[in-house]
Amino acid sequence: MSIKKVGIVMGSDSDLPVVEKAINVLKEYGVPFEVHVYSAHRTPVEAKEFAVNARANGFGAIIAAAGMAAHLAGAIAANTTLPVIGIPVKSKNLDGIDALLSTVQMPTGIPVATVAIDGAANAAMLSIQILAVTDGALAARLDKARSEGAEKVLTKNRAIEEKFNA
Amino acid sequence: MSIKKVGIVMGSDSDLPVVEKAINVLKEYGVPFEVHVYSAHRTPVEAKEFAVNARANGFGAIIAAAGMAAHLAGAIAANTTLPVIGIPVKSKNLDGIDALLSTVQMPTGIPVATVAIDGAANAAMLSIQILAVTDGALAARLDKARSEGAEKVLTKNRAIEEKFNA
Amino acid sequence: MSIKKVGIVMGSDSDLPVVEKAINVLKEYGVPFEVHVYSAHRTPVEAKEFAVNARANGFGAIIAAAGMAAHLAGAIAANTTLPVIGIPVKSKNLDGIDALLSTVQMPTGIPVATVAIDGAANAAMLSIQILAVTDGALAARLDKARSEGAEKVLTKNRAIEEKFNA
Amino acid sequence: MSIKKVGIVMGSDSDLPVVEKAINVLKEYGVPFEVHVYSAHRTPVEAKEFAVNARANGFGAIIAAAGMAAHLAGAIAANTTLPVIGIPVKSKNLDGIDALLSTVQMPTGIPVATVAIDGAANAAMLSIQILAVTDGALAARLDKARSEGAEKVLTKNRAIEEKFNA
Amino acid sequence: MSIKKVGIVMGSDSDLPVVEKAINVLKEYGVPFEVHVYSAHRTPVEAKEFAVNARANGFGAIIAAAGMAAHLAGAIAANTTLPVIGIPVKSKNLDGIDALLSTVQMPTGIPVATVAIDGAANAAMLSIQILAVTDGALAARLDKARSEGAEKVLTKNRAIEEKFNA
Amino acid sequence: MSIKKVGIVMGSDSDLPVVEKAINVLKEYGVPFEVHVYSAHRTPVEAKEFAVNARANGFGAIIAAAGMAAHLAGAIAANTTLPVIGIPVKSKNLDGIDALLSTVQMPTGIPVATVAIDGAANAAMLSIQILAVTDGALAARLDKARSEGAEKVLTKNRAIEEKFNA
Amino acid sequence: MSIKKVGIVMGSDSDLPVVEKAINVLKEYGVPFEVHVYSAHRTPVEAKEFAVNARANGFGAIIAAAGMAAHLAGAIAANTTLPVIGIPVKSKNLDGIDALLSTVQMPTGIPVATVAIDGAANAAMLSIQILAVTDGALAARLDKARSEGAEKVLTKNRAIEEKFNA
Amino acid sequence: MSIKKVGIVMGSDSDLPVVEKAINVLKEYGVPFEVHVYSAHRTPVEAKEFAVNARANGFGAIIAAAGMAAHLAGAIAANTTLPVIGIPVKSKNLDGIDALLSTVQMPTGIPVATVAIDGAANAAMLSIQILAVTDGALAARLDKARSEGAEKVLTKNRAIEEKFNA
Repeated sequence: MSIKKVGIVMGSDSDLPVVEKAINVLKEYGVPFEVHVYSAHRTPVEAKEFAVNARANGFGAIIAAAGMAAHLAGAIAANTTLPVIGIPVKSKNLDGIDALLSTVQMPTGIPVATVAIDGAANAAMLSIQILAVTDGALAARLDKARSEGAEKVLTKNRAIEEKFNA
Repeated sequence: MSIKKVGIVMGSDSDLPVVEKAINVLKEYGVPFEVHVYSAHRTPVEAKEFAVNARANGFGAIIAAAGMAAHLAGAIAANTTLPVIGIPVKSKNLDGIDALLSTVQMPTGIPVATVAIDGAANAAMLSIQILAVTDGALAARLDKARSEGAEKVLTKNRAIEEKFNA
Repeated sequence: MSIKKVGIVMGSDSDLPVVEKAINVLKEYGVPFEVHVYSAHRTPVEAKEFAVNARANGFGAIIAAAGMAAHLAGAIAANTTLPVIGIPVKSKNLDGIDALLSTVQMPTGIPVATVAIDGAANAAMLSIQILAVTDGALAARLDKARSEGAEKVLTKNRAIEEKFNA
Repeated sequence: MSIKKVGIVMGSDSDLPVVEKAINVLKEYGVPFEVHVYSAHRTPVEAKEFAVNARANGFGAIIAAAGMAAHLAGAIAANTTLPVIGIPVKSKNLDGIDALLSTVQMPTGIPVATVAIDGAANAAMLSIQILAVTDGALAARLDKARSEGAEKVLTKNRAIEEKFNA
Repeated sequence: MSIKKVGIVMGSDSDLPVVEKAINVLKEYGVPFEVHVYSAHRTPVEAKEFAVNARANGFGAIIAAAGMAAHLAGAIAANTTLPVIGIPVKSKNLDGIDALLSTVQMPTGIPVATVAIDGAANAAMLSIQILAVTDGALAARLDKARSEGAEKVLTKNRAIEEKFNA
Repeated sequence: MSIKKVGIVMGSDSDLPVVEKAINVLKEYGVPFEVHVYSAHRTPVEAKEFAVNARANGFGAIIAAAGMAAHLAGAIAANTTLPVIGIPVKSKNLDGIDALLSTVQMPTGIPVATVAIDGAANAAMLSIQILAVTDGALAARLDKARSEGAEKVLTKNRAIEEKFNA
Repeated sequence: MSIKKVGIVMGSDSDLPVVEKAINVLKEYGVPFEVHVYSAHRTPVEAKEFAVNARANGFGAIIAAAGMAAHLAGAIAANTTLPVIGIPVKSKNLDGIDALLSTVQMPTGIPVATVAIDGAANAAMLSIQILAVTDGALAARLDKARSEGAEKVLTKNRAIEEKFNA
Repeated sequence: MSIKKVGIVMGSDSDLPVVEKAINVLKEYGVPFEVHVYSAHRTPVEAKEFAVNARANGFGAIIAAAGMAAHLAGAIAANTTLPVIGIPVKSKNLDGIDALLSTVQMPTGIPVATVAIDGAANAAMLSIQILAVTDGALAARLDKARSEGAEKVLTKNRAIEEKFNA
């Protein structure tokens, strides 16, 4: 099975420091991706265009990152039936709660799979999990990474135990 | 000067009980208006179409009402440079704070003139104030209504004074 | 390709009125599913068991619904690398904001795809979108439903237009 | 048609760093404006005076910026029927949510067109949109700026695409 | 010493059910009072007039009750140096948090003594405490009422103790 | 009439940077005051003792400053019928909203006159307003300061006007 | 070992409907308890008295329930070094978030073990867990109840499974 | 009576700066403790293992610290009937309110004794209070420390009094 691409769209290139964590995860897994800057409000035509054609263009999931009245993920989701993952980005004020509510409180029929505020790495993880549903090799890599993640915690645990539980 | 129309768009016809207060105010002032149900997410094409053509179609201001991740006002504002007035509608949960933040926290370049949660009457008042900027007769009617509003409060004041301050 | 099942887990059978909207959507699409009541806190063994074996048992996505300190989706996600969709359920107090934050603010490595408070229908839609990534027929059904949803809004629009724009 | 002026009022000169973004936008469009420091609480007489005479003095819209219990926009709006645009200013505590609610939750009859917390540039944009309702040349400039704004995003998009999608 | 009056101002007569609890407390203590309906936004002239003349008219404290963007207490306080007590009134949405922040977050120089949301009885208690600072007889009555309040709790305590601690 | 003292109590000497603004205002007005560090939780006996004897010791109002679960003002108010003014102090987390709610949401019978988060200057202003109810000279000084405050704003206004309205 | 008593204190007898859930749990476990109505603000003397003598009077843990500016648990904790468990009670406004923050955000040195809003049953469970630390029989009963609780969920699970997974 | 140990579990070693305050308190009291890094999501097996065996391994109370969707305390509590104390840790966003709600809003049957955001010292104090219920010597040390804490405040009080009340 030829693997699908993950689309990453951010509302502004100022979101890049957050989004880069998603890019890094996708690179790590070798999952093909494309990154774009499209604004739901400033470039609604291009944002829509991208979404409408995403399935035909080989995408399997789309990650959308935006702050404040974060409409981008919803605007993408309104124009495709691919799974759309929303990253609420923290802006200068309100600690990201505005972006979280704007992203997650979608009306019936148009879901956005929302992750934590600035949770770009998890957005990428979720997109890989979606692709792995029918890709056993990718699922195996996720399971392996999960084990490695546990091992990292346990290594830290041993360091803490040595320091304090002598 | 031939008066402009006010466009009223709601995201769902379940918003009508809120929106009707705007309709009533516009009727009271004899300001021409049109009402539509367009959803930013379910009918993005029609919502955009309406916005793109609004100025050419004789609109002078657009009122958009929506709840939850209330993207409608922003989606309209992204497709016109007419003033767009957003009414955050209270839904079943969160008391409308989700709709308020989704409506008001717009990015630079695409303002939405936001009124109170469920503040449909004020949305209509604001649209009339906008039209009245260059329409002296309408401005005079607003001033007269303001005086009448004060008089109503003062009548209530007299009733309260009689009851308690004898 | 034989279709995957969707697992639905709720933390308490008092969540059923919310969860039933997800069940109805899955039935409508003919997507096979299983429903369970497992509590992250009262039956942690069974909850874990279900999650650990979910991929092997033919599940393609898991929906988890819980209220208050809603740990269920996270507890499931900690034990599988399948996509896990969290429904924050509104309880008696706090309007569901506790469940929303407990569900969405997951640490790096263990994503939960969070939908709106009480957003069970969208949780099911999202699970179908995930299965449809590699299932063209299902994707086509989603696209058709999207068109029908738009048509429903437009029908309501015509009713409103007739009533007010005469 | 001779263009109206935009009035800018701030509650304290400590609001100037926020308000200057509004001033810059108005300068950019060549829209005439006046700036004043009037406090709803410390100089209620002057604030009222300004509002009462604003229409006669050639203003078409008034922008009011204030923080904390941000009454300024409402105090201006109580004394004029011109459109009043409120900028909730973030203060040392509470991230501006106090100013947002104090500005937007106005009672029926006295609307304030509220923009985002510290959203001074959009307040100016909105005032220009209001003046442009009956000023085709100004409307054309807004449309042109909108296109340029889209172009800027697309330029950034191309940079990002080149960097990541090679 | 001739006792001062307490002024009670509400922004709308719909606030009367809340305000009546203040009236009842003042009656109970035999403290003279006057009740008025003045709106900071709809009757700014009368609200100001009342405040400007309050000290000369024999008032010793002013209680102001308002909901939503509750500017009334602040508008009164801006026009007198008498102590002004603000009652944030819960409206249909947001549970009164908008009124609380609009009332309490006053700028330096213009304090409002804010009580709990819908806390009208305590607003009256506070006004009596203020008058009692230089009125020993009134202070004695407050102390007596405090003892009686304690006795009421202890009576309830005995009932509960009998029921459960047999 | 011999003037009453203002008592200032803070829950911890770490509150001093906030409280000093109150001290400075009282010094400026020449109002006698006493400052103490008493904690509702760590020194409940001394806090109570102070409150119980405050009226007899010549105090006319008490200012209490505390952060987090800010019980101090309430603990003082429970032990005196003098007016108690609460300053909610912002701590490391939650921006002071915890202290605000803990201070203002008092039960019926035991009011706390709450000012803004970190609003120590206004707490002192309010205490002076309370003492001035029956002290014409102090009232006159408050009125004079109010005028001077207005003049300061107007001076800043002229500077801004010169800079921008040339 | 002779078992310790659990003290239950509520700020007002209107809290009884919430507190009764704690009483029922303690009865079910046969743990001795006493119930009292003491208000931190209206009967500070009795509340303190109870706390100061609690350890000598055979109490092993104290549960305190209060709403709004819920100081009761903290006031008890300030006067004993026994473990104090706080139940934040939801009042008419703010959904209990005021009581939660007033109860949990205690300063260093005076902890309050806070449970969920209206979480009286868990307050009792926690008090039993505390007594069971050195009481093996009680610990065994807790373990048994935990198993029974799991079994109840699994019974509900089977009912749901039969209904939906046929 | 041989003293029980206190278990300290943190979700990530990045929580150590917060948790160290708990360690220091336990050292100060000479209460034996163990520290571990176990994540509810990344090492669910080890976290559960620790909890299941905690009572048999001589623990008398468990402190669990975690941020964001802070499930750790609940996950521990689900697997033991020992008292579990939760420390909500402030993360980069939302000021710890997410961790607070995720920790405190536990379902009936599985309590978590929650302390303030980042309140690690109090978590340790509470664990010692729990052990002291049946350990008179430890209780005496707590009482002594309480007196010393009061004395520290009173020393600070004297310094402040000397500085300001001369």
